[in-house]
Amino acid sequence: MIDYSALAALAAVVREGSFERAARALHVTPSAVSQRVRLLEERMGCALVVRGQPCQPTETGRRLCQHLDRVRLLEHELRGTLPTLDPQGHTRVRLPIAVNADSLATWFAPALAAFAAEAPVLMDVAVDDEGHTAEWLRSGAVLAAVSATARPATGCNSRALGAMRYRAAASPRFVARHFPDGVSAGALARAPSLLFSAKDDLQARWVRRQCRRHVELPRHTLPSSQAFVTAALAGMGWGLHPQALIQPHLDDGSLVELVPHTPLDVPLYWHEARAASSLLEGLTRVVVGAAKQGLGRG
Amino acid sequence: MIDYSALAALAAVVREGSFERAARALHVTPSAVSQRVRLLEERMGCALVVRGQPCQPTETGRRLCQHLDRVRLLEHELRGTLPTLDPQGHTRVRLPIAVNADSLATWFAPALAAFAAEAPVLMDVAVDDEGHTAEWLRSGAVLAAVSATARPATGCNSRALGAMRYRAAASPRFVARHFPDGVSAGALARAPSLLFSAKDDLQARWVRRQCRRHVELPRHTLPSSQAFVTAALAGMGWGLHPQALIQPHLDDGSLVELVPHTPLDVPLYWHEARAASSLLEGLTRVVVGAAKQGLGRG
Repeated sequence: MIDYSALAALAAVVREGSFERAARALHVTPSAVSQRVRLLEERMGCALVVRGQPCQPTETGRRLCQHLDRVRLLEHELRGTLPTLDPQGHTRVRLPIAVNADSLATWFAPALAAFAAEAPVLMDVAVDDEGHTAEWLRSGAVLAAVSATARPATGCNSRALGAMRYRAAASPRFVARHFPDGVSAGALARAPSLLFSAKDDLQARWVRRQCRRHVELPRHTLPSSQAFVTAALAGMGWGLHPQALIQPHLDDGSLVELVPHTPLDVPLYWHEARAASSLLEGLTRVVVGAAKQGLGRG
Repeated sequence: MIDYSALAALAAVVREGSFERAARALHVTPSAVSQRVRLLEERMGCALVVRGQPCQPTETGRRLCQHLDRVRLLEHELRGTLPTLDPQGHTRVRLPIAVNADSLATWFAPALAAFAAEAPVLMDVAVDDEGHTAEWLRSGAVLAAVSATARPATGCNSRALGAMRYRAAASPRFVARHFPDGVSAGALARAPSLLFSAKDDLQARWVRRQCRRHVELPRHTLPSSQAFVTAALAGMGWGLHPQALIQPHLDDGSLVELVPHTPLDVPLYWHEARAASSLLEGLTRVVVGAAKQGLGRG
């Protein structure tokens, strides 16, 4: 049997980023935390956490932490039938998830907030590109994820949520200045584009579809969905924006599509670890319901 | 003399995250990129990039990249006096900066966007906790940063920008439910708080000031300034919000201060690498001007 108090110490170190803060969270001394983690490492025969600032789990460490997350979900189920386990009813379960920034900025945040306001959970939300959130689940860092990947990881389920619709848009002044003769590969090679991060390939995908070839785009990187819109309004660059976020600006003409009627649809999927947990099922219900409202048909 | 074509290859690998994408950006073959980086590594006698997904610079690699950024700024100055260097006037200079998320979500984004819409730059914006952005400059990853640290790094200048005012706020329903008898250490130990990330210590600082002791807070982590507000409105938790972001909600009563008139002011500083660059000076002017409007007196 795994030593769960040692595993809880490991999870606290990973979550808090240091042995000192983990000790404070667990109400024990740092040397007790250190000893528990070391014993677990000896038992496993490998390092579980890379000591640094912050401390980070090794791959095996992350898998153990995900196992602990699942065990805690099961404990929560048990508490429902054995209320004496937690007479004060104060225990909250940690639910780590990963989501893409544009979902969080549009349909996902209100759904998540409504769920978390009522359920006995503490959400740990990680934000990454929709092409990479599934890796968070695969590596064991989270229990559920919104992802552009359809195929579920081992031990996980996935289901289609619908598609996020993007529009290639910029300010009218930007378009007049950088695309006076329309959108061509040559003009795109000179007009600054907006990228959310180095992982963001939406602009390149849209260009490949429009121009039927790769164009090396000059680019700003700006990792915030809302700042992306602010940047577009001010004429800093063109980029792919979630339609839900810029519809008011398209309506009032402060942003225009680079080429009318050329949306890019990105199908999204909900992945969750199989965990026989009513909490995770509850979150799934809320997420699927919000996606039905907030996303288009995939 | 440093081999600048090799250094440009290194910088492209770091920026693009892979040798293949760097090759495409530089219009050369991947093996040419690989060879240039290897020669530079042999010359320096150490690894400059950690091959991975994405490729990341070593500390020495990062310093070399920052040096290249500075040289490019100087080249841009020269172009101003020798226009034949760049007859088409299309060359844009890459300007990597780091900023805290709450600044980006409030006063910083419009200023940055207005600057970048007119200046011949490509901005690379990194977002991190205001306690950590100065490290980005120190490590050579960026040329300027908004930071809570006053002391400038070697080779850099810093100046006070003013203070960001935060309010500890939640929905009225959340307050009624979790603080029926007022805000106490005991109630705070049970009411879910909102943290931006594991690095976010604003909530802990506010609690320490209010309760005159450390309280271990149950917490959600939610790394988005706007989702933070959405979460507060829905009653998911309490947290420290930039006043500029939640003033409308405080005005209409959808959010209330946990304890009236208990703002937390975080002084912010602008750090920039000394680079004798009119572009960097231009950005500084815009940032200082926007801070004067958007921040309180430090």
